[in-house]
Amino acid sequence: MTDTRTVTASAGEQTIAFAREFEAPASAVFRAHTDPDLLARWTGPRGTEVVMRHFDARSGGSWSYVVTGLGGEWAFHGSFHEVTEATRIVQTFEFEGDPGHPSLEVLTFTDLDGGRSRVDGLSLFLSVADRDAMLAGMDEGMDENFTRLDELIAAGGAV
Amino acid sequence: MTDTRTVTASAGEQTIAFAREFEAPASAVFRAHTDPDLLARWTGPRGTEVVMRHFDARSGGSWSYVVTGLGGEWAFHGSFHEVTEATRIVQTFEFEGDPGHPSLEVLTFTDLDGGRSRVDGLSLFLSVADRDAMLAGMDEGMDENFTRLDELIAAGGAV
Repeated sequence: MTDTRTVTASAGEQTIAFAREFEAPASAVFRAHTDPDLLARWTGPRGTEVVMRHFDARSGGSWSYVVTGLGGEWAFHGSFHEVTEATRIVQTFEFEGDPGHPSLEVLTFTDLDGGRSRVDGLSLFLSVADRDAMLAGMDEGMDENFTRLDELIAAGGAV
Repeated sequence: MTDTRTVTASAGEQTIAFAREFEAPASAVFRAHTDPDLLARWTGPRGTEVVMRHFDARSGGSWSYVVTGLGGEWAFHGSFHEVTEATRIVQTFEFEGDPGHPSLEVLTFTDLDGGRSRVDGLSLFLSVADRDAMLAGMDEGMDENFTRLDELIAAGGAV
């Protein structure tokens, strides 16, 4: 099953953990997260477009983009604390529409048998309330993003 | 009392909160956190020296320094997610001697009456274990740092 995605968010904690498998090696899925042109092809709801303001995927770099379409505009920015090739991304994340609620996200990329891989994510929030607000909106969005990434992989676009 | 410092770290949580007052306005205490020459004058145990590798205190910038002396060397690095003049710093933090345990820190600078100010800090850790490990070592270090910052302020060095 390529669409197996688990989310763990225990009551009263400030974290969200997820795991998702892909039909591509870790190096390709990592590239789809660090190449701004590839990231733009699977990020955001269908019918929107990602406009990169800047995107410098290296340890110490930073990023910012705007998702536009469907009558709206949603801007995000963050910093890359660590970018380790095909292995790990540690980044901050903030939605500019509701500033003052930054989060920290750790993504770990692991090769599986058969040319497949798994991404494990852990997001940390400043408060349980911040975590719960993100959780309320993320489930559908995360699934749609990852389905779009599956399609990009199937089309050979991420390799 | 200039040396009133509170630390809150409830059992089972992934955060450490602190508050500390200083005999200087928020703008001066903020500058002591964002000017690398000033930061180096109060960071680390007495008898050590801070060697900046780089320090770019702006939103999207990054920093790295080494504390040397007392027979040891301790390197740290992180990213500045947000640097808002005299108001707020949001940064990541990682000790290179024990990699893989990044944290996120929010520092808020608030002016008080009489030219004094308060710094409120909130640090987020990837796990309760990470938080507890930091807590075990930080109390004494934080007090010594802030006492050194008091001395820098009293000497007129932070203004």
